[in-house]
Formats: sequence, C-alpha cells, structure tokens
Amino acid sequence: MNTFGQIFRISIFGESHGKSVGVTVDGCPPGIDLCEEDMLEDLARRQAGAKGTTPRKEKDLPEIISGVFNGKTTGAPITVVFRNENTRSKDYSQLKVVPRPGHADFVALKKYRGFNDYRGGGHFSGRLTLALVAAGVIAKKIISQVKIAAKLIEAGGQNNIEKAVDEALKKRESIGGIVTCSAKGIPIGWGEPFFDSIEAVISHLVFSIPAIKGIEFGSGFQAAKMTGSEHNDEIIDPEGRTKTNHAGGINGGISNGNELVFRVAVKPTSSISLPQETINLKTRQTEQLKIKGRHDACIALRVPVVLEAVTAIALADFKLIVK
Amino acid sequence: MNTFGQIFRISIFGESHGKSVGVTVDGCPPGIDLCEEDMLEDLARRQAGAKGTTPRKEKDLPEIISGVFNGKTTGAPITVVFRNENTRSKDYSQLKVVPRPGHADFVALKKYRGFNDYRGGGHFSGRLTLALVAAGVIAKKIISQVKIAAKLIEAGGQNNIEKAVDEALKKRESIGGIVTCSAKGIPIGWGEPFFDSIEAVISHLVFSIPAIKGIEFGSGFQAAKMTGSEHNDEIIDPEGRTKTNHAGGINGGISNGNELVFRVAVKPTSSISLPQETINLKTRQTEQLKIKGRHDACIALRVPVVLEAVTAIALADFKLIVK
Amino acid sequence: MNTFGQIFRISIFGESHGKSVGVTVDGCPPGIDLCEEDMLEDLARRQAGAKGTTPRKEKDLPEIISGVFNGKTTGAPITVVFRNENTRSKDYSQLKVVPRPGHADFVALKKYRGFNDYRGGGHFSGRLTLALVAAGVIAKKIISQVKIAAKLIEAGGQNNIEKAVDEALKKRESIGGIVTCSAKGIPIGWGEPFFDSIEAVISHLVFSIPAIKGIEFGSGFQAAKMTGSEHNDEIIDPEGRTKTNHAGGINGGISNGNELVFRVAVKPTSSISLPQETINLKTRQTEQLKIKGRHDACIALRVPVVLEAVTAIALADFKLIVK
Amino acid sequence: MNTFGQIFRISIFGESHGKSVGVTVDGCPPGIDLCEEDMLEDLARRQAGAKGTTPRKEKDLPEIISGVFNGKTTGAPITVVFRNENTRSKDYSQLKVVPRPGHADFVALKKYRGFNDYRGGGHFSGRLTLALVAAGVIAKKIISQVKIAAKLIEAGGQNNIEKAVDEALKKRESIGGIVTCSAKGIPIGWGEPFFDSIEAVISHLVFSIPAIKGIEFGSGFQAAKMTGSEHNDEIIDPEGRTKTNHAGGINGGISNGNELVFRVAVKPTSSISLPQETINLKTRQTEQLKIKGRHDACIALRVPVVLEAVTAIALADFKLIVK
Repeated sequence: MNTFGQIFRISIFGESHGKSVGVTVDGCPPGIDLCEEDMLEDLARRQAGAKGTTPRKEKDLPEIISGVFNGKTTGAPITVVFRNENTRSKDYSQLKVVPRPGHADFVALKKYRGFNDYRGGGHFSGRLTLALVAAGVIAKKIISQVKIAAKLIEAGGQNNIEKAVDEALKKRESIGGIVTCSAKGIPIGWGEPFFDSIEAVISHLVFSIPAIKGIEFGSGFQAAKMTGSEHNDEIIDPEGRTKTNHAGGINGGISNGNELVFRVAVKPTSSISLPQETINLKTRQTEQLKIKGRHDACIALRVPVVLEAVTAIALADFKLIVK
Repeated sequence: MNTFGQIFRISIFGESHGKSVGVTVDGCPPGIDLCEEDMLEDLARRQAGAKGTTPRKEKDLPEIISGVFNGKTTGAPITVVFRNENTRSKDYSQLKVVPRPGHADFVALKKYRGFNDYRGGGHFSGRLTLALVAAGVIAKKIISQVKIAAKLIEAGGQNNIEKAVDEALKKRESIGGIVTCSAKGIPIGWGEPFFDSIEAVISHLVFSIPAIKGIEFGSGFQAAKMTGSEHNDEIIDPEGRTKTNHAGGINGGISNGNELVFRVAVKPTSSISLPQETINLKTRQTEQLKIKGRHDACIALRVPVVLEAVTAIALADFKLIVK
Repeated sequence: MNTFGQIFRISIFGESHGKSVGVTVDGCPPGIDLCEEDMLEDLARRQAGAKGTTPRKEKDLPEIISGVFNGKTTGAPITVVFRNENTRSKDYSQLKVVPRPGHADFVALKKYRGFNDYRGGGHFSGRLTLALVAAGVIAKKIISQVKIAAKLIEAGGQNNIEKAVDEALKKRESIGGIVTCSAKGIPIGWGEPFFDSIEAVISHLVFSIPAIKGIEFGSGFQAAKMTGSEHNDEIIDPEGRTKTNHAGGINGGISNGNELVFRVAVKPTSSISLPQETINLKTRQTEQLKIKGRHDACIALRVPVVLEAVTAIALADFKLIVK
Repeated sequence: MNTFGQIFRISIFGESHGKSVGVTVDGCPPGIDLCEEDMLEDLARRQAGAKGTTPRKEKDLPEIISGVFNGKTTGAPITVVFRNENTRSKDYSQLKVVPRPGHADFVALKKYRGFNDYRGGGHFSGRLTLALVAAGVIAKKIISQVKIAAKLIEAGGQNNIEKAVDEALKKRESIGGIVTCSAKGIPIGWGEPFFDSIEAVISHLVFSIPAIKGIEFGSGFQAAKMTGSEHNDEIIDPEGRTKTNHAGGINGGISNGNELVFRVAVKPTSSISLPQETINLKTRQTEQLKIKGRHDACIALRVPVVLEAVTAIALADFKLIVK
C-alpha cells in the first residue's frame, strides 16, 4: 500500500507520465509555517540536471492544494501535487512485450495483468520520490531540533565521484554508489522495541526508495567481524554519551542520544544506453534491447536528499508518538 | 508498537524474567493442521545449549491457548504462550544504576521513567524471539509452496565458525556473524511498490530482531561498485527467469519469480564476561562492570531460524494480501 | 486521521474554501473501467440545487490525476481532485470570535489553537463528502454484484418530505431526517467477528459523515422491546435465507446472505437564518448571531448518496479482504 | 481482525469452550498501578449469576502474564488471560448441522469452511467481552480524569427491569434492553474530524459487542424530528459549556467539553428455551430446535460494564493521540 506512518502519515500517488505525482501528509501539527517555496531547495537537490543525472528537465513545481491556511499548517491533511509537464508522447507499449532488465516492467505486467501504466515505469518511477521529498520538507520542520545530513561518499567504487560519473557517461554505462546519513539532536527515547524500532521503521522507508540494495546502522556489516569488547560503546556520562558509536545512536530500537548513523547501497541505474539482452514475451525469443532516451548515469547522485526526507518522515512520526 | 502485519498480523508480548513470553497470530486461514509439536523443531534450533550459546536451559514449551480446534486452525486468533521457568531470582536492580554497554538498559530506563522490567533485558530480551519463531512456524504452513532456508556463513570474520566460537569462549569474548537467507518458490507478484515492497517489509521485521546491524538484498552493498551492464539481470524466458540474480528475486519491490536472497549482519553479543567501563548513574562516575551469569558467545548462531521465521511472516502476509 | 480501510483504503483531504477537496483511493484492483463521467451521476445526487439544499452551485467536476490509464484502473492509487471554484471572498474571521452553535467552530479553534481554516467550516465542511462520493463510485464498481440503495424516508418527522422542507424554508429553519440504506447481493461471509464486524465498520464510516446522530441495523432500537422468539430470524433454506430479517443481514458481524438493512438519523442543519445566541469569546458575553449566506434547510436530502458511498467503501474492503 | 486502536491498541483472542479468552493491551504508559484485583469489580459486574443472566458460574479470574512489574505497568504489552474452567464436555457438533436462529453458527460454518470452534459460539461468544472488560479497566486508569457510567434503563420495553426479566424467565423467553452511557470530564479536543471522530470510533467498538443493534449520540434519532433552532446547543461560556446537550458532547467529531452521552439498543438473547424452527443442513428440511443448557434471559443486564469498557478504550486512545 502507498500509505505509511502512525501519526505522521503519508500517502503517495502518481505516475511518471500520467497527470501528476503527489502526496498527502496527515497528522501534521497546526501552526507550522509552510509554503511551496519551502520545498524548492530540497526539490532542486533532487532535480535532474546535474552531470550524471537524466537530462529530463521539469520545473517540478509543487502545489499545495490543502491543509495550509494563511501560510501555516492547519492540522488538516496537506496535499502536494506535482503536475507532470515534460512527458514525451512517444510510444512505450513495447515495454509490455520486451521488459527491460533490472526494471519493474515484467513484474508489473504480471501483477497488474497488463493494466499498469507502463510509460516511464508508471507508478514505479523514481519520479515518485518527488512526493517523498515534499513530505520530507514538512517532516523536517516538525523535528526542527534534529539536523539530518546525507551525502554520497562513493560512486562506482571510487571516492572521486565526478571522475567515476564521467567514465560511466563515456561508456554509456551506469554506476552505483554509497550514501551515508546522519541525524544529530534526536532526544533519548524515540522509537520502540521490536516492530517499531528506529532501524525497522527507517529501513522500511529506505527500501521504499527505488534502487536501494542494502542498509546498515552504525558499525553495520563490519560488526559481524568485531568482538563484543570492541563493539560495545562505553557510556561516558549520565546523559548516555558514548565513547564510540558502533550502535549508530540506537539501543534496543530506541534513540540513545548519540548521533544516528546509517549507510545505504544504491545500485546502478537499470536504464543504460548499451545494448542488452532480454526476452520478447510475444516471440518468446531472446532479443537485443536498446533503451533510448534520457536516464541517469548515477541515480545515487539524487539519493541523499531523498534519504534525508524518509529519515525525517520516520523521525517526525516517532516524535509525534512520544510527544 | 508490538503488532505487525496487514492480514497475517502478529502481536508479541512478554519479558525475559516475567511470567511468560508469547504471541497472538491473527488472520491465519482456517483448516491448517497445527499443534504444539509442530513448533518444537524450530524452537530447538533457536534453543540455548549449543556451544557458544547461553547455558540457560529452558524447555521452551509452547502452549496454544486459542485459535486451534480439533488440531486445526479455526480462523480465530491463535495465541501461543511460553511460560518462563528458569528465571533466577537474583537481584537485577543494579542495572538501573549501572547500565550495561550495548544493551537497552539506559534507553529503557529513560523512556519508561524507571518502570520497565529490567530483569534480563525485560521486554527487550532476545527471549522474545521465541514468539517470532512460533509465529514463523504458522507462517511457514501458510506459504507451504515456499522453501525458506537461513544459514550462518561467517562468525567473527571467519568461515570456520566452530573455531571462531571456541576462540571467543576462551577469551571470554563474544563475536558477530553473517547470516544468509533464501526463499525458493515465491510466485511472481507478491509485494507492492514503495512502502510495502518485499525489501521494506522484510527489513522492517528483520530489524525487529535484536542484534541485527545491516541487511542487503541480492547484490547488496556490492551493487554500489557495479555497472548497470554487470548488474542488470538478463531475463531469459517468458516466466521471468534471469541469468544472474543481482536483484535478489525482487524488482520494483515485487517478487519476480527468482530466488529471494538476502544477508544480515549480526553484532557480537553485548553481554561479555570481560570487565567493561560504563557510567554509574548515581555516583555519576565511570565504573568497572562485570557481567556475571549466562550469555551467548555468538548470538548469530541462533539467528537463522529467527530470520526464517520473520521472512515467513512477511511472505505469509504478502500471500494473503494478493490471494 | 483521514485514512480508512485495510485493503481498499481511502484518504480524504481538503477544505470548503481552500483550493480543493479530494481523495486518494488505494488498493483498487486493476482493470476496472473508470473515468470522471462515471462519477457525475452520484455527484449530481449529492449536488446543491435541489429545494432545501444550499443555493451554492458549483460544477463539482472531479479530475482523476492518478491511477487510471487508458480508461482503466491500473492498481496504483487513484487520486480525484475537486477544485473549489465558488468560494466567496467574504470575511469569515468572525467565526474565531463568535462560534456558531452546532458547528465545529469552537472545538476546531481550541484543538488547532486557532490555526484551522475556519472559512465555511474548513476541513470539517460537508463539502468533504464529495470525496466520499467519488470513492464510493469506485467502490461500487468493485462490488458490482451488490445493489445498494439509500433513501430519505422522513424529514422533520414527516413522511411528506417536500412539504416539510417547504415549511422549514418558510420559517428560515432547518430540519432533520431519517435515511434508510439497503444492500442486496452480499455473499455469505463478508465481515469479521468483533472489531471488523460489518456493523462496526459501516457505523465507523457512517459517523464520519457530518450530521449523523444515530444508526441502527435490522430491527435496531425496536429490538430492545422484542422477545427472543419474536426477534430470532428463522432460517428457511440451506442458503441461509431467513423468514424475517431482524438481523439486518448480519450475524456475528458477518453477512448472512440476506439483505443488509440499516437506518440513520440526520440532525437538522446547524446553519439557520434565524437569530441564535452564542458566546463572544473576546467580550466573554452572550451575543446574538445571525448566520448569513447559503445553507441547506434539510441536509438529510443529500445524505442518501453519501450513505451509499460509505456503504460501498466498507463492502469493497470486506470483499477484497475475503477475496 | 481482532486488533483495535492507534496508540492504545488491544488484541483479543479466545473461545467460549477452548482453553482461554484474553487480551493484549499495547501502548499503555508506564507507571500505572495495576494488578488482577483491580479488575475484579468490573468483572463481577459482567459476571454471570444475577437473575436473568446465565447460571454458568466461572470464577473469571484474570491472570496478567506480561507488562506489569512491581505492581506497575512497564510500557510493554500487557496480556491478561482468563482460563476457561467450567466448559461442559457435551457434544456441540449438532450446531454444524442445525444452526441456531439469531446466532453466528451458520455464517461461521460457511466463512470458516467448517473449521471454526462451534462449541458455545466459539470465538463469537459473548465470553470474549471478558477481554474487553479487562482492557477497559486499564483504559479507565489512563483516563482517570473522566468518569464513565453506563446503565440499563429499559428491558423488554419496560422501565421496571426486574419485573420484565421475571416475566421473560417464566415464559422461557429472552428480552432486549436499552443502555445509556455517559462520560464526564473529557477535555475539549479529543477526537478527529471524519474517520476518527468520537462517534465513529466509539460506535466501531460498541458494535464489536455482541447483540448491539443500534447506537445514538446526544439527541440521536430524536434529532431527525427536530428543527435547527431546537437542536443547536447554545454556547453559554468561553469554556464551551452549552445550555442543552443535543450534541452529546461532540461537535465535528471532537469533544466539546460537555458530557459525552450515548445510548445503545441490545437485542434479546438469541438462545431461548422455547422451541424454534430452523433448517437442518443435512436433510435440507425444516426442523424444530430446542436449545438446552444455560443462557441469559436478558443479556442487556451485562452490557453496561462492557459499554463502559469500550468507551474507556476509545477515550484512552484519543487521549494518548492528543497527549
């Protein structure tokens, strides 16, 4: 389903080449300053146009169509709509016959019995992350005491990201990347044991972002190679500060007052200009596929702001539950 | 909160040293053979006793107190209770003053203002995974067409797991590990785009297991270093079979008919016999802590069956939603 | 919160005098014919314009901005937006000082600390039932085997409804009414015991309609005066048909194959032209209030189509859960 | 499903003649005094034994098996179990062939394909209200500022309840009744517009109680016969007190600071000693049915404490959401 959250609840909708994408945010407290302009900075960070991202350029202008009055949230649901403008009219119907490797074309065709909007990935499109970013802007305002920062630290296995992207572009390839995210200022006690642990809820939202393949908190996969005496974070003061932060700011699913830290792995964009083999569902024969048009060489470039958004969405809900 | 699932919904309860731990499973279809004996095999796999796991030996006998009639599920909620028998009467109240590093003692104290049951971790205890295993047994029956298998493939950074555990025991240390999980036989079309993607729901449940630090699906973190042409799985027949399986059996959040594959990182057990430093919340001074009593040298040894259980729980819900 | 449903899930948003009202419908199966025109008939039934309803005339034109492709539902969320056009620019700010009796002005002011959109009732407006009617049109298509019909059977205590409305208009008064609703063709087995009983879910949705004061199923309040031998419905054939239908088509919360029958009480519209007394929150003195402008003499006239809509919404969810 | 609530969440389980009935209460704040004895008074009010209720006498002793430590709630889920002791071993299998009029026998048989526990109504039994009462005791403690009181005001159409019950007993009949419920001390602002209105949530829970046929708030069905000027409650002071209380303490779904008032209709117990006609599903012929054994002449006698319980459950959740 396309709804998430207990108190701060978001519902996303839309398709890549349909009329719009958007989001309804319910449970936002009243009295928070909010206007479309507040969203532009984060939307720009997500925006196409940087080297290595798709040349599709849309204005991505949000319109708030409910829940804001006199420049402030009212407590009623906030709906933000992005009208799709730059949707090319080309024929996408071939995707129903020749599914692209790495994409959802094949599973969508089967699951929705051919009725899905396949144009540009339809509802599966990364364009839906516009909705997440918009909701994230609202969430960030609710948890204004927390500073969230995500950063692409590696692309194509290299730290020199620009170079890696250049190389990929030259080869008509795509590359993956690693994005870190941290959040400072979370008070002790957000999150719940078990099903609503901070890790559980954040990972749930993170894997809702297309192209994410892995997530690790604090010491992450490295923890598997450590001993208990190395891994345990010594508590050094009555406020719970720890000498190290292998826990990534979380114990028993609950924030411990230290910095929240996690990392995600982003796969290389599935759409590449190089020819690929796939099946033709009509002829039942292998066929060479050439994907034309615009696409990202490194989708990971756009992930940081989306990662911040979903982190903020998770934390806003935790805050409103604990209150 | 301690409830998870849309149609196949589980609610867990209990404490390590209270009267019981248990689970209520709602949404289970009627007519499935079920008795306590069906749970013993998986419970034994989770059971204390193996080298490297805590010497605490309980019979861990489940009692089904509702939802089963004449040896079959009725469609009503199934409640399974494990009475705690071997709870030592020793005084645990020191945990409120000297929180153990790596444990939830400190956050629980703060979050619940001192009212939490701190004995043996209370509600945060790994003992609650009994409830998950019991629910997993029921879930496995619902998705009987799917074969799930999890395995510890590395402990303390080594593939020779027995040796690694022996070394840890000698050093009075603990070690982490890596567990893989696969599921064969999932039909095409389980899972949903975005918030109910297979990765999102499985990771949500996986991070509900204590000590998990990371999860990766298919190519996982390795994907970040790959190119699109390497990573994309070529579709080789009209049933969607792929030549490689970097996707881990999932596209766009939805099962693609190939094997579901993921791996998790387990941290070293927080309780170790070696002395550790921590804060004394009364004196506000650093203090040396010696944790006595029983504990696991390698909690990862017990994780496979729990991982299978939560995977089955997630898949059972997907199956019942799609139907 | 503004979301309801397990599988067929609706999220409503909007305000009377803001930019729009609308709804997102998630969980709708793919392949159902759907376009804006399909909604016009039910929207017209709800529409202002009939004698006794407010003279505010809007076109109430729905726009489907997601979830439909080539005239059919895709399985993705369907968002329907109604742009508000005829919102008078008059000053409503007096409502923050002089709350109207019977309205939500006072509670909204307190709950939202003055940030609510008070114009025309804001998010509390009966105009939000546009969203319910739109969702109801979709729901009716899902349960096409069921025929739902609601009817105003009494207004102002009289069966001659037109006359009662005329009288009320003359007196610048408003009147309440009784609406019945029935649904034929529900198969045996929809609904669940206890919290998801048919009565529980329908009443939940029915009391989400503004102005509803009571609901009764089958024999309803009359049952309180009956004996068991009078009330019990004799089962007359193996398909569960009953001689009488005091149960209203439901036993143990579950449809029994007979006609679903219930009735609701609608209060008189709170807005009347007659002068009323209320408190002035600034002067803290009683004050005479004269409500100007457009309003319904008998809001119950509009309720039938809304009642059908929420009934269809409830039943569609039951159908999709049972499948 | 058998779970209800957003923050204060209850999950019920059990069968009339199985091992137990019980409830898990999640989301209860820590630090509240709680022990089994606290439940005895309300359980006694619900208890069998009064004239007109079934002679089945069980001790109905609750056992709290999780979530309480040192006599106080811990913040973890609280599970309360009632072991069934007095379950007669008689053969109930005839219910699968000759469904009792007014009962869930027929629908349960169909819905659960014959696997339901039919003994004494199984999971449909009124005995499950034990779980509601236990949860209600906890809820009442959370909203200790609110005083809830429910009362049977009419049975069999008469105000002299004892006499009506006596008559029914003599005739081997059963009778229905009307129960009122009020709650004083609810602050302004609990509840939400639309789907989580106080009426919506309370009616949802009320219709989860077996035998309820109708509910009305404030003026209720009488409102349908009133004019706006009669019905509107004049606000008489800045705290929102009103001269009349036709609203029943709720405007726009939200508590307005006045007394919450509602009434419910209870049908006559379906089990009566008089012979009744029904269908034999094997012979497909009409058959005379004689229900033996214990049953209530007036189930409404037991409803008040259950009604208080579900009201408290709804209000506790509202309080914890608003906080």
